[in-house]
This record gives sequence, C-alpha cells and structure tokens, in this order.
Amino acid sequence: MRAEFIGIGSELLTSLKPETNSLYIAQRLEEVGIELVFKTICGDHEEDIINALKNARNRVQLIIITGGLGPTDDDMTRQAVSKFLDRELIFKEEIVERIAGRYRMRGREMPEINIRQGFVIQGAEIIYNPVGTAPGMWIEDNGIYIAILPGPPAEMIPMFDSSILPKLREISPFFISKCILKIAGLTESEVDSSISEISKRARNTSISILASPGIIDIHIISRSKKSIEDSLTILEEVKSMIKKVLRENIFSEGESLEEIVGRVLRERSETLSVAESCTGGLLSSKITDIPGSSDYFERGFIVYSNTSKVENLGIPEDLIAKEGAVSQQIAKLMAKRAREISRTTYGIGITGIAGPGGGSAEKPVGTVHIAIAWDGGEAHTKNYFFGTREQIKIQSAVKALDMLRRHILKK
Amino acid sequence: MRAEFIGIGSELLTSLKPETNSLYIAQRLEEVGIELVFKTICGDHEEDIINALKNARNRVQLIIITGGLGPTDDDMTRQAVSKFLDRELIFKEEIVERIAGRYRMRGREMPEINIRQGFVIQGAEIIYNPVGTAPGMWIEDNGIYIAILPGPPAEMIPMFDSSILPKLREISPFFISKCILKIAGLTESEVDSSISEISKRARNTSISILASPGIIDIHIISRSKKSIEDSLTILEEVKSMIKKVLRENIFSEGESLEEIVGRVLRERSETLSVAESCTGGLLSSKITDIPGSSDYFERGFIVYSNTSKVENLGIPEDLIAKEGAVSQQIAKLMAKRAREISRTTYGIGITGIAGPGGGSAEKPVGTVHIAIAWDGGEAHTKNYFFGTREQIKIQSAVKALDMLRRHILKK
Repeated sequence: MRAEFIGIGSELLTSLKPETNSLYIAQRLEEVGIELVFKTICGDHEEDIINALKNARNRVQLIIITGGLGPTDDDMTRQAVSKFLDRELIFKEEIVERIAGRYRMRGREMPEINIRQGFVIQGAEIIYNPVGTAPGMWIEDNGIYIAILPGPPAEMIPMFDSSILPKLREISPFFISKCILKIAGLTESEVDSSISEISKRARNTSISILASPGIIDIHIISRSKKSIEDSLTILEEVKSMIKKVLRENIFSEGESLEEIVGRVLRERSETLSVAESCTGGLLSSKITDIPGSSDYFERGFIVYSNTSKVENLGIPEDLIAKEGAVSQQIAKLMAKRAREISRTTYGIGITGIAGPGGGSAEKPVGTVHIAIAWDGGEAHTKNYFFGTREQIKIQSAVKALDMLRRHILKK
Repeated sequence: MRAEFIGIGSELLTSLKPETNSLYIAQRLEEVGIELVFKTICGDHEEDIINALKNARNRVQLIIITGGLGPTDDDMTRQAVSKFLDRELIFKEEIVERIAGRYRMRGREMPEINIRQGFVIQGAEIIYNPVGTAPGMWIEDNGIYIAILPGPPAEMIPMFDSSILPKLREISPFFISKCILKIAGLTESEVDSSISEISKRARNTSISILASPGIIDIHIISRSKKSIEDSLTILEEVKSMIKKVLRENIFSEGESLEEIVGRVLRERSETLSVAESCTGGLLSSKITDIPGSSDYFERGFIVYSNTSKVENLGIPEDLIAKEGAVSQQIAKLMAKRAREISRTTYGIGITGIAGPGGGSAEKPVGTVHIAIAWDGGEAHTKNYFFGTREQIKIQSAVKALDMLRRHILKK
C-alpha cells in the first residue's frame, strides 16, 4: 500500500519551520509495512489544500494529513477536506463540551472561537485529543483512507499511536518486526564499520543508523508476508549478530540513558546528586525529564563560578588555583562533595570548556572532565568533544549518564 | 509569482532524513518576493517524479527541483524531466571533461558511470557545479521556469546563489523587506486576536504567527513593486501598529529571552542566581546556553527534594510542611535565599508540578510558582501551564526569564 503525507500550515513553507511530523509518521508506516511515497506541504489556503488532496487521491490509497485544525480563521483543513469529499461539516456538541471542560479544569472559560473545533466531516470517525483541543478524524471514502490529525507533535503523536496505528495494522498486508539498539561510547563510523557486513548479508531486513550527539541508534526492520512470528525470527537473528559485535556499548532497545539509570536507581533504592559546571544544569534537567525522578534525584549544584565551587561544595580555593577549575582533580572533588553533602549513593561532577571562548592550546574548547563518586570509589574520564556549545553540553551530559550506567550495571 | 519545491530522493521519505534544502530555498525566495506555496517530496522513481512535475505545472510558475542528479541507476531526475517536457537528453562532452578534470586533479580516474552526468535536457542552460560532479540546469518552457540542482546542500547552495538567484531577481517583480517580532506572556490566540485587524488591513504585507512553548513569533514580510525603500516603509508602518497593540509583550526582533536578559545584566554588571525545583536545571541550562554567561550567571541550586530546600537554601522545614513545597511562599523564599547566598543582584525561584503525577484538585499538574527577588523587592506569579512534563518545564523557564526581563527593563 502506498501512502502520502500532507502537511498543512503556511509556517511550513517558510525558512523557519522544518516539517517533522512526517518523520515520525514515516517511521510508524515502516513498522506496518506501508510505503510512504509522497510528501506534500501546502499553506493554509483552501484551494491549495484541495489541489493537494486531488493529486494524492490519484496516486495513493492512504492520505495522512496533519495541521490546520486550530480554532482560527487560518485553519482551513476541516473545510477543505469537506469540500474535497463533498461531505458536510457536522457540529458535535460533545466535542465542544470536552474542550470547554479542559478550560474549566484550569479555571478559565473557553474562548468562543473554539466552537469551530466542534465541526467534523460527515461520516468521519472522531479521534479525541488527549493533550490539546483539536479533535482528529479517520475517513474511508471510495477505497481510500484519510487520517486527519492536529499539527503540534505533542498532540499528533499520541493520537496517531492510539487511534490511527491500529487501523493501519488492519489494512496492511505485511508483518513487520522492528527494534532499536541504542549505543553510547562509540562514534557513528565505528558503529557503521562494525556492522556493515551484517547489514549486507541480512535478508528481508533493513538496518539504518541514526546519530545524535553522544548517541547512535541502529534501527532494524524485518518484513514477512507469512506471519509476525516469521518476521520476528528474522529480526532476532540480525539483532543477536549485532549484539555480539557491539556488546555493552548497546545500552538499551529503546529506553533513554536517563530512564535506565533512573530505573536501576529506583529498583535499588539508590540516590543521585550532581555538581555541574560547563553543562550548566543540562544534566540535572535531563535526569528530571523522567517522571518520578524525585524518587532518586536528590539535588544538583550548578557551580558555575569558582566562588560557588568553593562555597557550595567546599572545594579548596588553592586547589582550583593550582589545578584549574577544568581538571581531573576538581571534577572528582565535585562528584565526591556533591555526594557527601547530599548523602546520596552516587555523585557526578562535570567541569569543562563548552566554548566558543575560553579554550587554550592545553585545554581546547570541548575539553570536559567527568567524574562519578560512590562509597569508597570513583571513576573519571577526560573527554574532547567536537561541535557547538550546545552540542558539547549535550555530549557531556550523555557521557556522564553513560559512565554511571556502566558503573551501576557492573555491580 | 508562485513557486513549488520538489525534493527528490527515497531517503527523504524515511524516518531518518529530514529534508532541509527547502528551508534554505524558502528564505531565498522570500528575499526576492516569490511565494513558495507547495513542497513535494518524492522517491527516485521516474513515474512519481513525472507525476509531481505535472501537478506542479498546473499550480505554479516556478519549479525548483533538488536531488536525483547523481551518476547511479537510482538517479532518475534528468530522465524524468526530459520525458515530462518531451525534450531529448543531449550529451555534452564539455561536462564530462570538467568532471574528469576534477578527478584528475585528485590523481584519480573518473569512473565510467559519471558519463551519465554529461547528459542535459535539450535547451537547458547548464549550471556548473563548483563543488561536486552533477551539473544543474535552468529551463524555460511555455511560461514556466524550472531549476534543477543537486541534492547535497554543499553543492546546491553555491549553485543556487550564483546562478539561480540572479535569474529569480529578474523574473520577480517585487522588492521585499521583512522582520520578526518575538512575544512572551501572551497565548497564540491572544496575539492572533490582538493583531487580526492589522493583518486584515495591511496592504502588501503578510503576517504570520509561529508559536512554541511560551513564545510567539510574528513574521512580517512586505512587498513593493517600486523600490526596496518603499517595501521598508510599508514594513515599518505595520510593525509600529503591532508594537502599539502588543507593547512590552514584544521582547525583541530576533534575540532570545536568555540573550536579552544576559545582555542587559552584562551591560549593568549585574548578576543572577537561580533556585529550581520542578524545572530541574532547565532554566540554568537555558541561561548557560549563551556564550559568556559566566559573566553574570553565578550559580544554581537544583533543590529537588525538600531536604535540599532546607539544607541548601535554609528554607524552614515547618514552612514547607505548612504551605507545601509548591506555594507562593516557598517560591519567594527560594528566590530570596538563592540571591542572598550567592550575593547576586537577582535571584529566581521556581517550584511547581511538572507532572504527569503529583497533581491534585487544588494544585493540578501545570501549577507553577515563579518568584524573582532583588534588593528590597520581589515579584511573583502563579501559573497554570498546559502540556507534557517537558512543555511545562519549558514554559516555566521561559516565564521566569520573561519576568526578569520585564523587571529589569522597567528600571
């Protein structure tokens, strides 16, 4: 089955707004064996949307639309699809009731403008929106399928997963199994050359590599026309070959580093505190992105100035003067003191040069010392990261989490 | 004049590869007053490319194609455009000579496969490639213009700028001026309804709104057939009308909140410290994303646990027990104590419920107290933010920065 994605929104035609919904949807379509063959982006103009729909209808059997479902005059998707299909827009009181309820819960009144979002296309199945106000729709029309979802990814994704994906599984002829292997501690080319032979030999399987700062994902998808079990067998074969090669560098099949670390700490009733200099709070922010992280994350010290390193962590001023704030000794002491003050199982210390200024021949931009402290022991790495200030911050935070992961999983 | 971008390449239809050429081209088109109204992405299949071209011809006057010009079997763009226009592919010895010369310069022989790149469409103007092997083309055909460029941005961009842009300047009848107004403290619909009258009345100007958590951008583009000065006059008129309505809610014409706050603090030799609970380090991380932020950012306290609030900030345990950690009193005390301990000009305190757990009827998920403290004064807001845990964290950090901005700019 061939599918087309239609992204609606004039902002998607500017230089400012990359369109990302289709990347997520492409991945989900791969999983159910549906081929994405076209993407069309058009502005919030009724005529252009209808034009895009007409073209799509002539070349695919599944059309997935995102965007243009907001409450303002600009939002033309409902109206355009209704004209294209020659089906009326029907007002549904219960949708407006739900939206008004969301506002009431927060002590606010629903703006009158939101009433527009109560209109749906005749015969459409309504997809309720757990996060925002705009409902989505699923329509079958003379042999083609149309899904309509809101543009914001935070709304689109849960609606796609809970309501559209199950329908696609029913209408697709392929059985698909897939997995991700997440890797830290290796570069993209190291991963690539390690698994290139496996990639070439694998049958009915596609293997692709996606790199982000500090983390490499290997995506494996296997297909079968026979059964889900068959596709799973193919997948497991390839997966075990890759695992043999990359071993403990693989940290999960989906969980993020902060999730794994958090899960293990919670299981063991262990706790964590951090002292950050060059990452400026990013490590703590990543750790606290995990719901319930207050169970194991005690506190963080963002000791940006040397004064704060001395006052908040009790690091001797003369040691900073002697070794420099960016040094193995200071990183170790930051980890140790964070742990002692917070009485946590582990402490992490990070100090480095995120740039673009502040580098020297001896300590170039990207030099980052990371240390972990625990009862009776410590670990340390000296790293040279490439990239922008933000990329260096991210790589530092990822490396610190990976060091902690490797340590706690050895125990 | 209306334009369509066609991106060709099967990799652009996977989940892994965002398409970026169109963002660059959109910006260039804006500059010459040509409206990008459609983007189409299709794979390396002759039939699909021809289909995309046919649709584009029916709706725009300018088609810009990138990708599919390589030397392999997969690269179908030349062939597809030739069939679409019903023009022959002509072999140009001089193109192959150039490609062979590039290889020779590197002491290598040109692979035979590159001979394919010597074929161009009859009547096309050849655009030489200063970086790679694939030449581009410029074609005028019955009132429409077609530009064909290679996919890799490093090749596409210099070719576009040196050869396509001057042609577009000639065929476009417009002079363009543009700007951005950045807004905090208002919702998208508040901004929308405040400026909708201005939008409707503004002549030769397009105004669009782009929302991200906590921040709204208004993009204004004005066009003139007379001169660049005239387009600038139109722009300034619209801009000043919007400024009159939105006043101090507009925080910049490009700078981020963390940049503005940082710039002003540096100019005044003032300093900042923060105490974060629910944002878990995100506010500090945003502040320290700015190069040189160590000039004014002293330190941060991530007081995630109640114990750390007591120990690191000296907040009375019984006050937390009485008011709750998420309360106006605690937020204010966090800001005050952060400032006192760090001896900074300002202190910020944030405490709230980022969710998804931890909410109650009285304090639902999204309840966030933010306070600022300075010498002899303080400010506080109680907020109810919508969205996911991460969105609530971002909105809280943005709101804190905006509160500080509003305060320091009043002085």
